Amino acid sequence: MTSLPTAAEVEQAAARIQGAAILTPLLQSSLLDARVGARVLLKVEALQRTGSFKFRGAYNRLVQLNAQERAAGVVAFSSGNHAQGIAAAAQLLGMPASIVMPRDAPAIKVENTRAYGAEIVLYDRLYESREDIAARLAAERGATLVPSFDDPHIIAGQGTAGRELMQQAGAHGALPDAVYVPTGGGGLIAGCSLAIKAACPATQIFAVEPAGFDDHRRSLESGARAANAKDAKSFCDALLAPEPGELTFQINSRTLAGGLVVDDDEVARAVSFAFRNLKLVLEPGGAVALAAALAGKTVTNATIALVCSGGNVETDTFVDCLQRFPDP
Amino acid sequence: MTSLPTAAEVEQAAARIQGAAILTPLLQSSLLDARVGARVLLKVEALQRTGSFKFRGAYNRLVQLNAQERAAGVVAFSSGNHAQGIAAAAQLLGMPASIVMPRDAPAIKVENTRAYGAEIVLYDRLYESREDIAARLAAERGATLVPSFDDPHIIAGQGTAGRELMQQAGAHGALPDAVYVPTGGGGLIAGCSLAIKAACPATQIFAVEPAGFDDHRRSLESGARAANAKDAKSFCDALLAPEPGELTFQINSRTLAGGLVVDDDEVARAVSFAFRNLKLVLEPGGAVALAAALAGKTVTNATIALVCSGGNVETDTFVDCLQRFPDP
Repeated sequence: MTSLPTAAEVEQAAARIQGAAILTPLLQSSLLDARVGARVLLKVEALQRTGSFKFRGAYNRLVQLNAQERAAGVVAFSSGNHAQGIAAAAQLLGMPASIVMPRDAPAIKVENTRAYGAEIVLYDRLYESREDIAARLAAERGATLVPSFDDPHIIAGQGTAGRELMQQAGAHGALPDAVYVPTGGGGLIAGCSLAIKAACPATQIFAVEPAGFDDHRRSLESGARAANAKDAKSFCDALLAPEPGELTFQINSRTLAGGLVVDDDEVARAVSFAFRNLKLVLEPGGAVALAAALAGKTVTNATIALVCSGGNVETDTFVDCLQRFPDP
Repeated sequence: MTSLPTAAEVEQAAARIQGAAILTPLLQSSLLDARVGARVLLKVEALQRTGSFKFRGAYNRLVQLNAQERAAGVVAFSSGNHAQGIAAAAQLLGMPASIVMPRDAPAIKVENTRAYGAEIVLYDRLYESREDIAARLAAERGATLVPSFDDPHIIAGQGTAGRELMQQAGAHGALPDAVYVPTGGGGLIAGCSLAIKAACPATQIFAVEPAGFDDHRRSLESGARAANAKDAKSFCDALLAPEPGELTFQINSRTLAGGLVVDDDEVARAVSFAFRNLKLVLEPGGAVALAAALAGKTVTNATIALVCSGGNVETDTFVDCLQRFPDP
């Protein structure tokens, strides 16, 4: 597959990852419903293997390599969740993995990546190019370089989360009118949107981004890919891609209804809410869809599905959210 | 039903609570499996409505009251989770609820109980009798007094967690060789044991208790109900019952294989592990079964199911666990 993935490729990915990935639960909370004023479904990818949805795409990509390619290994660059996904998938498949990570990535993500048996290559996010380092490593070793979002198999793999969401929602008799998806490079939402639109064309899909990183919102409005300011900052470390992916935006520009933006305080409040009321550990980037719903950025009062995309948060960051926003 | 409940009554309870209670997920974690050295299944009742399994029994009890009884209301006494279960069930059924709670109950449990619309009556755990206060209130109002564990309908309702666990494990092709259940008064484990033994008579069921509150372990060994020391202390506030219940022990003395004991540090380590690796918020009493497995108190290296019974933990207590046990 060199062209854009389709809903059929998401189906194939679902068959490939079955047994390796966890069928994560679709949860409901009457307290959350009351707070948001809608029926809310939570697709909890924090409960996925490696603590985020990234394992889905990584496994779908690597399991398709042949024996020779597997022996030569995989190289990836990532601030953390893609790193863990690739490392865990490579370990399951008996492949060597080298991951290029920024020096300022959360320690928990670096440690966990190493715990999955990967070699870690640290770089400086301001002065070095992770693309160059990773490309050089891959060339030296004949290894496969796997990008974190702009790859058809990665997109199709992440889409399995959306496919499951629609199947589980259907089993509850509650197909969502809108789905909110945390968005960085756009791989998760691109894959999910293929599966969601195939299951229910009327469902509206929204990218949720941190303030300062609302490249999808602006790109969807203008119709062309727009980049974020280079000095933008957010504590949603999982969502700091500089601009929409080339492949992902070709899909997202067709499938998405728009973008929603949340600031860091709204996200911290959502992290605290999830701790207090949902008993879930969400990382900032994994909580932006919940944050949008809690902040009243709702587009329907019927049924909304929120993807909670990851839970790999540093203790200090998590504790800070709980202490700053102690209200139930 | 005035006699002991049976597995058939757990079935009936399951039909009654359907739609009101959440079908909580049965989760797996490859990291946990590796750490414990067994296949581990987690029945996560922290994700139940009100944040603990207690809603199951409460709703099963109250939904059977007639219109006149419902109008007269319900009275209960509880350190917290039963309080929230009763309050939420009463609210759903349009009944007034009065809950007698100790002054030193976690604030989150008092606040949440009030948020479900219940009247809170505080008492001093050392100098007053909650039984007397609740009995007086119930008599004055003609209300129904619902005990937290020693009641056939409460036991049958809690048992629905065990019934679901076995159905979900069966769907995974992994019926557990052993099930660990957090145990205070013994209502959850009594009900669960009825359902578990009906589904798979060979499965061994173990009560897990905090050190100083190992009344079930000792009672199961001696064959007669034994009480805990009056000055015993543990931060597992959900599991501080003084002795096994009368009805619950009639069941548990037949169905359980024994008791396991964990100290507060082992529990705190489990709370931290659940945060870091499972992305779940567990309260100390809800984490004792996980604590026993992580501490190597394993009775089989095949398949173990752990009930994670609740997640209503104070922020300070939770943060203390994370900071004292920072290792992954």
